[in-house]
Amino acid sequence: MASLRDTTPPTNGAPLTVGNGRVKNARKLARRSFRAEHRLFLADGPKAVEGALSLPGCVVEVFATADAAARHAVLREAVAGVGVDWTLVDDRALASLSDAVNPAGVVAVCRFVDRPVDHVLAPSTVVGARDDRGHPRLVTICADVRDPGNAGTVIRTSDAAGADAVLLAGHSVDAHNPKTVRATVGSLFHLPIATVDDPADAVRRAQSAGLVVLAADGAGEIDLDDAIDDGLLAGATAWLFGNEAWGLPDELAALAGHRVRIPIHGQAESLNLSTAAAVCLYASARAQRAQRASRVDPRSVDS
Amino acid sequence: MASLRDTTPPTNGAPLTVGNGRVKNARKLARRSFRAEHRLFLADGPKAVEGALSLPGCVVEVFATADAAARHAVLREAVAGVGVDWTLVDDRALASLSDAVNPAGVVAVCRFVDRPVDHVLAPSTVVGARDDRGHPRLVTICADVRDPGNAGTVIRTSDAAGADAVLLAGHSVDAHNPKTVRATVGSLFHLPIATVDDPADAVRRAQSAGLVVLAADGAGEIDLDDAIDDGLLAGATAWLFGNEAWGLPDELAALAGHRVRIPIHGQAESLNLSTAAAVCLYASARAQRAQRASRVDPRSVDS
Repeated sequence: MASLRDTTPPTNGAPLTVGNGRVKNARKLARRSFRAEHRLFLADGPKAVEGALSLPGCVVEVFATADAAARHAVLREAVAGVGVDWTLVDDRALASLSDAVNPAGVVAVCRFVDRPVDHVLAPSTVVGARDDRGHPRLVTICADVRDPGNAGTVIRTSDAAGADAVLLAGHSVDAHNPKTVRATVGSLFHLPIATVDDPADAVRRAQSAGLVVLAADGAGEIDLDDAIDDGLLAGATAWLFGNEAWGLPDELAALAGHRVRIPIHGQAESLNLSTAAAVCLYASARAQRAQRASRVDPRSVDS
Repeated sequence: MASLRDTTPPTNGAPLTVGNGRVKNARKLARRSFRAEHRLFLADGPKAVEGALSLPGCVVEVFATADAAARHAVLREAVAGVGVDWTLVDDRALASLSDAVNPAGVVAVCRFVDRPVDHVLAPSTVVGARDDRGHPRLVTICADVRDPGNAGTVIRTSDAAGADAVLLAGHSVDAHNPKTVRATVGSLFHLPIATVDDPADAVRRAQSAGLVVLAADGAGEIDLDDAIDDGLLAGATAWLFGNEAWGLPDELAALAGHRVRIPIHGQAESLNLSTAAAVCLYASARAQRAQRASRVDPRSVDS
């Protein structure tokens, strides 16, 4: 591991055991404070490692069991191709690095993927739903989202809906928490993630970047169906989602351009956070694409 | 507990302890086999108990700590109002009945809520999106959905989207699993649930009830946006969702009227089951309501 001190003598090719210094150091990355200190985290499983490899410079070292090395020869070649160590460990050592019930046999030590918020919201032509000039068109802001599974699922859904970025604001869970990483199923590596200390600051920066902020709020003044019908979702939008238990504080929701409620047609009191985010983000994705399709593109007209 | 043998002597009003026979019997309801044998389950927390009370005859007995009894006086009155015992237990006994990290202090022993599938799909004028003649218009079918949190969230989302019923088919998780019950946040008691052994049978029964079955399938031949544009979602629909890991078997998907894929605009491979279900069910809810609104209702015309 590049930036963690390692004084363990070499093992002459034998798989590292649970007591090995490098394995011990990697294991400490289960702790948020240790992750933050070194800006390193663990990507668990072949899909996650594959995703991390797609980000240049992200993977620092890969630990794998002999079984997994045999099963994932293509992945091993890809790791070698970027000049990263593939280190054999025994089953117990691998299991100590994974919080999965059935570890998949491959774990990578990775550099943090979050980027400065200004960079994430700046014009670019690289990702997602960005408009013709590269400005972001669909962004997700999580304010104090505490559950790692929820945060990971919201990142995955944002990716699927073609969002340009996810901002994790306030006391939201660490994007590099093992449970969050797993719930993203690779999407952590697919779209830019930024961490913002103050949720109000995240809202203001999104607005400065030309996005209309829509707060998802069960008590919102606009019904989502009406927001769609009125064209509110067709423009550049940032969705603001609050904590899974207590929602958005009033003063934060008040900063948004509009507060939008998902209609509840049955007797449920509300939706859970990740399903609500899916409904909102897919409504935006559809509205933005319908709006684009309705513009006449001269290149698409037969001559 | 009405149908469980209890040979414990009375405690003369002192809170029951963890070793009490009634508490022990209730605790066994954590096991699926014991639940199935007695067709009883545990509803954990004041919201769940309140939901269960809304179903006549559902609640058999309530256990509560003295603290919770003081906090939930209205609930206690409601329980007394339907002639059900409210039994004081100590903190340890209550905790033994709850799988929550922080038990809320109230747990009810309830009768199973599932109903025969024919009853659930029969014309009625009571619930959900049913049409003017009481036929179901929006139904959810889960085929081999194994994760209790997913199944519970799908039931909650179905309720929110105004669905008429949920069918849990094949090797789907037990609707009365404590984790499922918790994830429904009361919706388990809001709309009819049926258990069907064979998923193919569930599809055929939905079709016999006049529903077009749409299989949610990442490899489906119709994009969800096109399905909306083509009016496919405006009619009476049953959504068929498969296992969270391996989706729908081809032969089951083939029984559906159409296989619909949610568009993936980014790099994610797929959505998770409960978010996919939310996108599909809310697309149907919106399409069905738009279609109803477009019909001229003579009663709504000013004279």
